[in-house]
Amino acid sequence: MKSHTIFDWSRAARTGIPEVVFAEHKPLDMLLDIINSHIEEAKPLLVTRLSPKQIKALEDLPMNIDTHARTASYLAKAPANAPKLAIVSAGTSDAPIAREAYVCARFFGLDALLIQDVGVAGLWRLEKHLPTLQEMPLVIAVAGMEGALFSVLGGLLHAPIIAVPTSVGYGVSQGGNAALSSALASCAPGVLTVNIDNGFGASAAAAKILLHAKSRED
Amino acid sequence: MKSHTIFDWSRAARTGIPEVVFAEHKPLDMLLDIINSHIEEAKPLLVTRLSPKQIKALEDLPMNIDTHARTASYLAKAPANAPKLAIVSAGTSDAPIAREAYVCARFFGLDALLIQDVGVAGLWRLEKHLPTLQEMPLVIAVAGMEGALFSVLGGLLHAPIIAVPTSVGYGVSQGGNAALSSALASCAPGVLTVNIDNGFGASAAAAKILLHAKSRED
Amino acid sequence: MKSHTIFDWSRAARTGIPEVVFAEHKPLDMLLDIINSHIEEAKPLLVTRLSPKQIKALEDLPMNIDTHARTASYLAKAPANAPKLAIVSAGTSDAPIAREAYVCARFFGLDALLIQDVGVAGLWRLEKHLPTLQEMPLVIAVAGMEGALFSVLGGLLHAPIIAVPTSVGYGVSQGGNAALSSALASCAPGVLTVNIDNGFGASAAAAKILLHAKSRED
Amino acid sequence: MKSHTIFDWSRAARTGIPEVVFAEHKPLDMLLDIINSHIEEAKPLLVTRLSPKQIKALEDLPMNIDTHARTASYLAKAPANAPKLAIVSAGTSDAPIAREAYVCARFFGLDALLIQDVGVAGLWRLEKHLPTLQEMPLVIAVAGMEGALFSVLGGLLHAPIIAVPTSVGYGVSQGGNAALSSALASCAPGVLTVNIDNGFGASAAAAKILLHAKSRED
Amino acid sequence: MKSHTIFDWSRAARTGIPEVVFAEHKPLDMLLDIINSHIEEAKPLLVTRLSPKQIKALEDLPMNIDTHARTASYLAKAPANAPKLAIVSAGTSDAPIAREAYVCARFFGLDALLIQDVGVAGLWRLEKHLPTLQEMPLVIAVAGMEGALFSVLGGLLHAPIIAVPTSVGYGVSQGGNAALSSALASCAPGVLTVNIDNGFGASAAAAKILLHAKSRED
Amino acid sequence: MKSHTIFDWSRAARTGIPEVVFAEHKPLDMLLDIINSHIEEAKPLLVTRLSPKQIKALEDLPMNIDTHARTASYLAKAPANAPKLAIVSAGTSDAPIAREAYVCARFFGLDALLIQDVGVAGLWRLEKHLPTLQEMPLVIAVAGMEGALFSVLGGLLHAPIIAVPTSVGYGVSQGGNAALSSALASCAPGVLTVNIDNGFGASAAAAKILLHAKSRED
Amino acid sequence: MKSHTIFDWSRAARTGIPEVVFAEHKPLDMLLDIINSHIEEAKPLLVTRLSPKQIKALEDLPMNIDTHARTASYLAKAPANAPKLAIVSAGTSDAPIAREAYVCARFFGLDALLIQDVGVAGLWRLEKHLPTLQEMPLVIAVAGMEGALFSVLGGLLHAPIIAVPTSVGYGVSQGGNAALSSALASCAPGVLTVNIDNGFGASAAAAKILLHAKSRED
Amino acid sequence: MKSHTIFDWSRAARTGIPEVVFAEHKPLDMLLDIINSHIEEAKPLLVTRLSPKQIKALEDLPMNIDTHARTASYLAKAPANAPKLAIVSAGTSDAPIAREAYVCARFFGLDALLIQDVGVAGLWRLEKHLPTLQEMPLVIAVAGMEGALFSVLGGLLHAPIIAVPTSVGYGVSQGGNAALSSALASCAPGVLTVNIDNGFGASAAAAKILLHAKSRED
Repeated sequence: MKSHTIFDWSRAARTGIPEVVFAEHKPLDMLLDIINSHIEEAKPLLVTRLSPKQIKALEDLPMNIDTHARTASYLAKAPANAPKLAIVSAGTSDAPIAREAYVCARFFGLDALLIQDVGVAGLWRLEKHLPTLQEMPLVIAVAGMEGALFSVLGGLLHAPIIAVPTSVGYGVSQGGNAALSSALASCAPGVLTVNIDNGFGASAAAAKILLHAKSRED
Repeated sequence: MKSHTIFDWSRAARTGIPEVVFAEHKPLDMLLDIINSHIEEAKPLLVTRLSPKQIKALEDLPMNIDTHARTASYLAKAPANAPKLAIVSAGTSDAPIAREAYVCARFFGLDALLIQDVGVAGLWRLEKHLPTLQEMPLVIAVAGMEGALFSVLGGLLHAPIIAVPTSVGYGVSQGGNAALSSALASCAPGVLTVNIDNGFGASAAAAKILLHAKSRED
Repeated sequence: MKSHTIFDWSRAARTGIPEVVFAEHKPLDMLLDIINSHIEEAKPLLVTRLSPKQIKALEDLPMNIDTHARTASYLAKAPANAPKLAIVSAGTSDAPIAREAYVCARFFGLDALLIQDVGVAGLWRLEKHLPTLQEMPLVIAVAGMEGALFSVLGGLLHAPIIAVPTSVGYGVSQGGNAALSSALASCAPGVLTVNIDNGFGASAAAAKILLHAKSRED
Repeated sequence: MKSHTIFDWSRAARTGIPEVVFAEHKPLDMLLDIINSHIEEAKPLLVTRLSPKQIKALEDLPMNIDTHARTASYLAKAPANAPKLAIVSAGTSDAPIAREAYVCARFFGLDALLIQDVGVAGLWRLEKHLPTLQEMPLVIAVAGMEGALFSVLGGLLHAPIIAVPTSVGYGVSQGGNAALSSALASCAPGVLTVNIDNGFGASAAAAKILLHAKSRED
Repeated sequence: MKSHTIFDWSRAARTGIPEVVFAEHKPLDMLLDIINSHIEEAKPLLVTRLSPKQIKALEDLPMNIDTHARTASYLAKAPANAPKLAIVSAGTSDAPIAREAYVCARFFGLDALLIQDVGVAGLWRLEKHLPTLQEMPLVIAVAGMEGALFSVLGGLLHAPIIAVPTSVGYGVSQGGNAALSSALASCAPGVLTVNIDNGFGASAAAAKILLHAKSRED
Repeated sequence: MKSHTIFDWSRAARTGIPEVVFAEHKPLDMLLDIINSHIEEAKPLLVTRLSPKQIKALEDLPMNIDTHARTASYLAKAPANAPKLAIVSAGTSDAPIAREAYVCARFFGLDALLIQDVGVAGLWRLEKHLPTLQEMPLVIAVAGMEGALFSVLGGLLHAPIIAVPTSVGYGVSQGGNAALSSALASCAPGVLTVNIDNGFGASAAAAKILLHAKSRED
Repeated sequence: MKSHTIFDWSRAARTGIPEVVFAEHKPLDMLLDIINSHIEEAKPLLVTRLSPKQIKALEDLPMNIDTHARTASYLAKAPANAPKLAIVSAGTSDAPIAREAYVCARFFGLDALLIQDVGVAGLWRLEKHLPTLQEMPLVIAVAGMEGALFSVLGGLLHAPIIAVPTSVGYGVSQGGNAALSSALASCAPGVLTVNIDNGFGASAAAAKILLHAKSRED
Repeated sequence: MKSHTIFDWSRAARTGIPEVVFAEHKPLDMLLDIINSHIEEAKPLLVTRLSPKQIKALEDLPMNIDTHARTASYLAKAPANAPKLAIVSAGTSDAPIAREAYVCARFFGLDALLIQDVGVAGLWRLEKHLPTLQEMPLVIAVAGMEGALFSVLGGLLHAPIIAVPTSVGYGVSQGGNAALSSALASCAPGVLTVNIDNGFGASAAAAKILLHAKSRED
């Protein structure tokens, strides 16, 4: 193992969230190094934001690759009897981030349900899922463009909403700032926000809420 | 009449919209000058964005003052048999701008209906007005904060929506940019936008659409 | 048909605007899936923002492709006896967006007239079209850089103007914000705005105005 | 009761959060109207962001006024056997927002603990509270300037962190954007964010997490 | 004379522009100090951006005060046989800045002509001044809101245009950025820009062009 | 000649500046079309912002190509007895824009002198050119990064300065906004600004000043 | 002593900088509390950013008040044999911040020299101080508007420069961002920056450099 | 040697920092020209921000290339008995900039120690280096995302901190502005900032502090 990275093996114990590797700025040799050291130690690992080129390089490793979510996981927890949550996305272009949140949630030991393409431009698509959503302890909402989905869900549900603005859009919504502002300025109380495109962060927070917060309350 | 202003008496003939005076940066003597010259010529006049101090100075003039909308009008057209439109506002704080749009619409000869406080945080408040809204040829929507109302209306109605973002809000929505971005980036087709707090502009465009556009089509 | 997209077959009935597919972030297989399901159902379809690569992949399908506008349409409505509107563009670089608006307008059943390269730097180019423009019930104006065209048209015409700022420009106008601000801050009443480069949105709103608004008024 | 406001009496039932009135843009007569109608109906009410002038006008009403937090409450729930949470603030200038979060949390039925003035410039001040914080199911962190507190807490605790950036600061941190960006870009997983100065929103989300989310899981 | 200011008595000789005092952030005693030292030395002086309170304090001094332009001048040059230029403003709210440019131009020894309230929303108001403007060696254009006047003049005239964007406006044009961007992004070649509200700077540059540049060419 | 472009053959007569073609967003066939029509009519033409690919396509045409300035000119005016001006650039990376200004100035009939790499970090490099610069009727200054050169020249010279901020830089100066702000906020009077990287615009304005303004004064 | 503030009495020992109280957002009673507890303990204290009202309330306390710098100090260190540094300001409006830096530097035990009003628009004013400045181990430069002074000093001196951008200016320089960008993007190596108007921070860093850094090197 | 660049051979003597060449916008022939002229004159040279392609072109020259830092140096000073400093980086993605700072510091004659991957999300990684860091006269801290490391170090250490924000991040931290704001708004006194990704600038300032400032004090 090279000296470029100091592993935080005790992070899971300290914060409840195992270290997840963000692949976007990592050179390939550093990435393989990190993965192999986890496989040798038989420690669970999740890698996110993989490029197509990086994914190709991982093909022969004993990892579970999801091309759409751009993730690779090793020794994911089995979600038996796990807390439920729903991940809801607005448009087909928001799907990769919603799927990243889904893979992360399952890796953290949550029983995630993925509901896609239920944006506000056709409210009936959302309405049909309301009974299911009303039963959820927590909902992650993924939306780009103007992010109206966050407020609509916040006004309809008991559950806390974690909003994930996406960088999908053009003109004033390019880069995701319009959706981010919508989440932060939402007129519906109980909407919480993570960074643009941060599906991982939403699920990490959900795990802290559904696993840790619960255990501390009992 | 002093030399500071060149009246565009023929504007109504040329563009269909009589000149409306924006009072915000005008000194009081200039404002009174403008008003008196219209009264002398018996020409219709609407003044918007009046300060409390300016309103006080106009009290004895033969004008119709609306303190809430911050407007004063002279010789407004009677809206007999006029085209209808609805003006919908999200929260109580958006009311002054919604009311400005309402006064302007009536001054331009439209039969405006004002529906207030139907924001997205409580969708049932909006639902009860849907049958009325479905019958309207055009809807002006007034909302601050995250402006989710624009997309929700755009997804539910046949009518074109003119969005008026308001400067109501704090933090990321201070000044109205979050609501403006929501209007421009709306996932619902057919949403058109005017400047922040520009209730006048929305009604001027509505008048051009409902009076001029119609006449040219026939 | 795969599960990634929920078609909103009733949208046309509900809002008057058939669903138009925005191709920019869609993978090719998802795009072909959507197109084929419409061809099977013989439902009209318009695809916008096609990349050169996507256009190549559609070549053998029974669609009407416009390389310049980056669109492909299937079963477009014939615009017999349709309402007229003019689409005016400022510079040669604004042409693709003007053309997108033109294709969309015709798909929505409008009789669009396209007038190009009549920017403000040479006002005589615009003047010669004024008699035609004065007869129009509605004008879509497409301009980048400083967007002075919006105010000039708004000051000259009875018709409502829908401004489409384009991302053409560099320095302070890069990305289209200077043109967008010009449209929103226009000193001429009756100028309405859509998002940067949103030729589709301008025509969708025009259709709602000229088809729906009219029917409700009668 | 005047027609300016439509009460959403069923909101508590629908979303778990009673309607809290944001006083900042409300005229005094409208505010008194709202308060009196709640007192007549004996319904709980919390008013936030009161100005000194508004506070003076409420002095003789049967409400619980907190000048520092700028709040007035009526019929707050007694927090017997309520879930715990900690509210931690960085500097003395962040105190009003931390206190607003504290009053709101108690109004929503949570057993809130307030720990103030433990900013990152003197880490030992924070360290001494770590044993208490480690036992909490959830922590609300309130900080302005550069908001380093959010990441430091996120790296040390199991609990999910709700970050409340404050508008305290000058130069690049004026208005709170630097602290907001720090919360959103935090390198520590599990940090969730609300709008700048939104102490109410943080506690509303905390209530949804600790009251609703828990009940759905059991 | 106190030590707070180092006078640059030779600036006029070095750069052609006498030092003009910007009053906005100056305490009254410092301002009077500066003025009195010029009166003692019988050196020409121009003070700009005076507040009403500062103007009151200068009333008894041998200075030429212009309340509208917010200026006070001492020993202004007589503009006999001076080069001409035109100062054109768009709306009545731009008048103070246009007037500041006018007073400065005359102080620098130019024969300035002031043409006000000829904005683009009524092009005929501008057209009637075109013959005069065509004869000018240089035109200063003063406009707020969307600043369309800059491009319209740039496309019609041989003369170089110095654009002065003003902070007049609200929403997206608040503070003057929309007008500034319009000036910089103008599609008409030959438009030069100064800072927002900088009427002084436009006239200082005009003086350098019409007095210095000319002398160097001959 | 195709219908995509309306030539403004009379622009030179009307504004003193022949139409210069901005190549950046133009497809190759449109560009060749424009060039060939000028060659057929034997009309002078300048093309700016050519890409390497576009330059290659013009190699066999009777044009004067400058790879560094990214320009191609046809029938440039001979600058015999032409007015002088200096073009000064700060760093080696600003050279392409300085050279664009130089080529344009000569095309417009000015006798331009190019002085490069005299940035403020080594003031002695600039000092040695001061005697030459003091004799110039006008100076174009080209600088990126923090643009300190504009104020230094403005404080030292009688001549008006036209500042051309460049997009050279990274971090806060990426895209040229830091240099643009420096030009606009300059403490030295007489600094005028054009858009970022707009070497053409600076020379077009210089031509209007040195050719037109002069003729009107005489 | 009340519970609102936790004093960090050991900060001076830990970081070398005694706690300085920033008065801007502090209520008067809290401020007096803090001051009195220091006087009781005979601990040195510096208060910055005092409002005129706060200054009035401190008049009878045994503190050294500087109205111009908006500071009050108690038990400042005597700067015998202290390291030297120069504080240089560009314009008269930058004086309050330069003076704040001066008072802070002396409180921290440095022998500060204050040189004011030597902006770049008149380089000769700066030149005459160059011999003094060349002898200094460190220079703090205070400038608003375009901040060209930072680069000019950085290119002339051996000493490291700490730039303090000020909020002095209007239009694009309003709030100090133009000067801040100039400091950060400076073409002269060795320019370091603190927040806008942060005279205290510049001197705190200077103290760490001249007192601590030196002691560690020896 | 070509005429495109004026070498500032005396800069090292004048400012203490030899000219370092920033390779990013330089064409290859210009770059080789500069390097060869230094080799011929046997003058020390450092080149930064080399692209992979530029690095390949320098392979056969007698230079010391660091692929990771993107630098090439010639005749670097031997750091015998040199002042020490530490360079600390937060995450693995910040490594290239930290390494650029390291190479530059050694080129300037400093004894730099590089400590990597000690971000705030795992404070224990930092704690173990505290004894070493406490002994340093100066620390350069390199961090992207939310830049919490700057304040944490500033609150723990006596040494002045030079913060280098990096462009590592996405969403609100894309481009490095969140980290830059954190450095500027830091609640810990004594934090100084350079431009985003400017590892060179941090070390140049460190050299001015540790070499020049010290010599002037003695």
